[in-house]
Order: sequence, then C-alpha cells, then structure tokens
Amino acid sequence: MSLVVVGSIALDTVINPFKKAVDALGGSGTYFSYAASYFNEVRLVGVVGRDFPVKYLKEMKSRDIDLAGLEIVDGPTFRWTGEYKFDMNVRETKKLALGVFADFKPVLPAAYKKAGYLFLGNINPGLQLDVLKQMETRPALVACDTIDFYIKTDLQKLLKVFKNVDILFINDSEAREISGVSNLITAGKKIMKLGPKMVIIKKGEHGCLLMAGSWNFAAPAYPLENVFDPTGAGDSFAGGFMGYISTIRKVSEAEIKRALIFGTVTASYCVEKFSVDRFRTLTKPQIDRRFREIKKITHFDTV
Amino acid sequence: MSLVVVGSIALDTVINPFKKAVDALGGSGTYFSYAASYFNEVRLVGVVGRDFPVKYLKEMKSRDIDLAGLEIVDGPTFRWTGEYKFDMNVRETKKLALGVFADFKPVLPAAYKKAGYLFLGNINPGLQLDVLKQMETRPALVACDTIDFYIKTDLQKLLKVFKNVDILFINDSEAREISGVSNLITAGKKIMKLGPKMVIIKKGEHGCLLMAGSWNFAAPAYPLENVFDPTGAGDSFAGGFMGYISTIRKVSEAEIKRALIFGTVTASYCVEKFSVDRFRTLTKPQIDRRFREIKKITHFDTV
Repeated sequence: MSLVVVGSIALDTVINPFKKAVDALGGSGTYFSYAASYFNEVRLVGVVGRDFPVKYLKEMKSRDIDLAGLEIVDGPTFRWTGEYKFDMNVRETKKLALGVFADFKPVLPAAYKKAGYLFLGNINPGLQLDVLKQMETRPALVACDTIDFYIKTDLQKLLKVFKNVDILFINDSEAREISGVSNLITAGKKIMKLGPKMVIIKKGEHGCLLMAGSWNFAAPAYPLENVFDPTGAGDSFAGGFMGYISTIRKVSEAEIKRALIFGTVTASYCVEKFSVDRFRTLTKPQIDRRFREIKKITHFDTV
Repeated sequence: MSLVVVGSIALDTVINPFKKAVDALGGSGTYFSYAASYFNEVRLVGVVGRDFPVKYLKEMKSRDIDLAGLEIVDGPTFRWTGEYKFDMNVRETKKLALGVFADFKPVLPAAYKKAGYLFLGNINPGLQLDVLKQMETRPALVACDTIDFYIKTDLQKLLKVFKNVDILFINDSEAREISGVSNLITAGKKIMKLGPKMVIIKKGEHGCLLMAGSWNFAAPAYPLENVFDPTGAGDSFAGGFMGYISTIRKVSEAEIKRALIFGTVTASYCVEKFSVDRFRTLTKPQIDRRFREIKKITHFDTV
C-alpha cells in the first residue's frame, strides 16, 4: 500500500570532531524517505526554496520518492546547523533558519489522500493535524514523531495528534518529559493512555523499546564502533520501519517486530556517514544482511 | 562443576523514596550466591563479624550455599548505607564501615582449590589475585567484577586480574573510564586487549552487551515498571550467569547466550524487592518463565 510522509527537507551544516559538511541534504522527511525507499515507493510532502539543488530532486526521483507533494517556493530552504562533540550522543543546535518552512502549509495531492500508510514526521503538531484532516480515508496505519521543542511549545495540539495515531515514535528523554516519570516502561504506558496504540521509545545507542499494550519488544542498536554522524538516525529508523510495514498486507505482531529490526538497520547505516551519504551506496542486500546479523546478536535457544 | 565465589557479605542500610531497610543482608558475594544457588551449589568465600545474624547463615545453608570458606571473626560485619532518589539509576553511598572486611585475607578451603568455576566478586584487586594464586588447578572459567573505586585506586593490580580472567563483568560507566572512550563497542574491544576473553558490559535498565571477539550478543533488561531497590542487580546478574554456566559440561556460544539471559532474569527479580528479599520467595520455574518471556520480547522471524 502507498506510504505518505510529511516532514522537513533541509540543508544541514553539520560539524563534528572529524569533518564539517555545509548545506548537506537533511531534514526529517528526507531521512525518512531515503530509508523507506528500500522497501516501497514513498510520497514526500514538504517544501523547499528555489535554492534547493536540482541534483537532490533528481536523486530523490531516482529512488522512487514521489515529489508530487513537494512544493518549491520563493525563498530560502530550511537550514539547520548543528555540532557534535566527541561524545556523539550530545548535539548542539548552532543555527536554525526556517526559511520557506516557516510558512509551510502541507497540501496533499489528491492521490495521496487515500494512502494506506501515513507518517507525520517531526513538524509543528498543528500541521500534523492539518495533514490528518486532509486524508479522505483513514489510513491502515498512522505514525508520528515529534521533538521536545513541540512538547514545550505546543503540547495541546500535540496531544490531539497523539489521539489520532496508531504508533508514536519518541526518544527516551521526550518520553520521560511527556509522562513525567523516569521509568521508561511506566512512561510508555502513560503515553499510550494519551492515544497511541503503540509507543516506540528510541534510545540511541541502547536501541529501542516497543510497547503495544498486550506485548512488548526490545531491540538493541546494531553494535557500531564508528558513529560518524547521528543526524537523521531517528527518521531513518522510522523510515525503515514504515517502509517495510507498508509493504505488508496484514500487519501482525511478527511483522511489527520485523519492521522494528529493519528500522534498527536503516538507522545504523544512516549514522555511518554524513547526511544521507550512506544511503547513496547502500543496497537492499546489505540491509538484509545486517537484519540477519541482528538476529545472531539477539536470539538464543531455550533450554 | 563446582562454583566458588569470593566477595563481600554485608549488612546494608538502604534508603529509597518508599522505604528504609536497616542492616539488611547485602554484599556482592551474597547477591551472587543467592542468584547462583538456583542453578548450582555455591561455595562462598568471605568474612563476617560475630554480630552477623545466625539466621542469615542458616538461610544460606538452606540454599545450598557452602560456608566452609566463610570466616567469622571478632569485630563488626561490613556495613554499607546508601540512598536512592526517585530516579533509581543514581545511588549515593552515605556511609561505609568496612569492619572485619578491612583485614580480610581470603583463604580457600582445600576442596575449593580445584573449583571448575571461579567468580572474583567486587573486592580489592590484590585479594582477587590472592585467590587466583591459591587455585591448584586453573578453573575452566574465571570471571571477575570490579567497581570504579578500584579503577581509581588500584588500577595496576586490577590490570593484573584482567590478564587472568576469561570474563569481565563491568558496568558501562566503568568500561568508559578504563578504556577512555565513550563508544561502548570500542571500549569493550580495548578492554579485551587487556586480557579478558569476553567482556560483558552491564547497562542497567538498558540491558547488557557481550563482546567475545568473534561474536557479540545484546540483551535488553527485562521490562520492569517497579524497580524497588537496584542494590545487588549487577551481582545477581553475574550470579545467574555463572550459576547456569557452571552446570554446563561444554561452554559454547549458545550456552553463554543462555547464561546471559539467566543473569538478566535473576537481576530483574533482585530489584523487585529490598535486599535479597525477592530470592526468599523466588522459584526456579519463575526464573524459567521469565527466561521464556525475554525470548518473546527479543526474538523475531527472518523474512
């Protein structure tokens, strides 16, 4: 079934102890789409300015990312500048220039309004609600992500979004912030009471936890020695998850677990290089190989 | 094969937001022995004062913990007072009174010197070396644990211990401290160069990572909503691991993985109550049930 994502498309300047990348392709919608494109066609809803490099548009099309929902308008593309120190877990936003993203009003092309799978990437919760309203039929599965900024500034609208999604992707610190509790299992349970049928708590190097009410699942991160650039890891995780699950006729517990591992895999590849660079060479067989490797490092025989 | 552990036996005063326990049974050797006793007889080497309650000695014996190596000497038993705040991950040592533990010189009974499995619990590295020297035959498997205190105060002797062990149990912050790197995979690899054939990095609520050179393994913590008292979790983890593996004729990759899950299980039960209270009612079938539950939350089918 078709997969629609709404999210940011950005030009990122990323500084880390090893390198600096200027105006590299970034944004939540971008990372999601690149990761998801290994599994399904992706329909990307977003906005860029006229300064957005045509080569990136071409690259997206070559990856079966449908751009009918991508607006190109006057003004500068959203730009983000961030720095990572030696401990790659800590990111500092140095500069944020919203540009054309400031006035973004997502408009879904007619063909998108019956999408089977919808991912509301990390954008203003009001816009996430707008997109939901534009859907003509309720998708089989709606998932969303957010960041602490919107928890702090727009909680009421965010809670409305939560009421309408099946799956919430959220990182550990945000889960603690929203729930007001430190224990992540309790936090997940409290958040599920706000609406989502499933909560996936992303824990960076510690992997993720999925809570689905009657069952839970836990996956470690793929053990990587060299994390080159963590930017986009969460979006690539959601992209791998949603890309895989959107190809499945009947969403079951077993398929959700597989999707979570595929998300783990795409996130692990994402952080190996700057920007979406790793996806430029990554192949589906490499994804499948790492999927099997994760099986080896997590499965054990019962006695 | 027989399993010998050397470690502390203490009377703990533990304060947490819910309760205060005074002079409760504690110590690394104790937690290890209680957890391991579900799998094998345990031979405990340690020291207590004459104030040590006889009921605890009786309880140990009733659990098949052999006390031929337990000295009872004049003076007060080792006492530790610690406090946990609402975030159970942070522990503060309020008081430490070594008592008879200050002059502890472990002496192995003759029967212990040919043990197949040896666990050097968290005590002074010099004493860990002493115990190693007393062994008449090299055990099939030697494991050790330590804490940041000895990394800071007695690193040279600790490094000698590392050269002589098969498995090092260490927590994440200590692994970072010893290796000087933040990435835990890199940290584990660096520590393996110091001697241990396997490094098991304990990450508390995030589970654990095992690195064995040619293969890795990762296990989540059992998802618990109510962590009542984290004291002894690491020792109970090692106890479950070593208790299980010491019953195995041929240590293989598959058995090590199982042992790690049994350690995860005994640690998860340990933190459900104060002191070793949970072990006072815990049964082997309950351990086996949680072992199978962890399978459900970690296993997935390949595509």
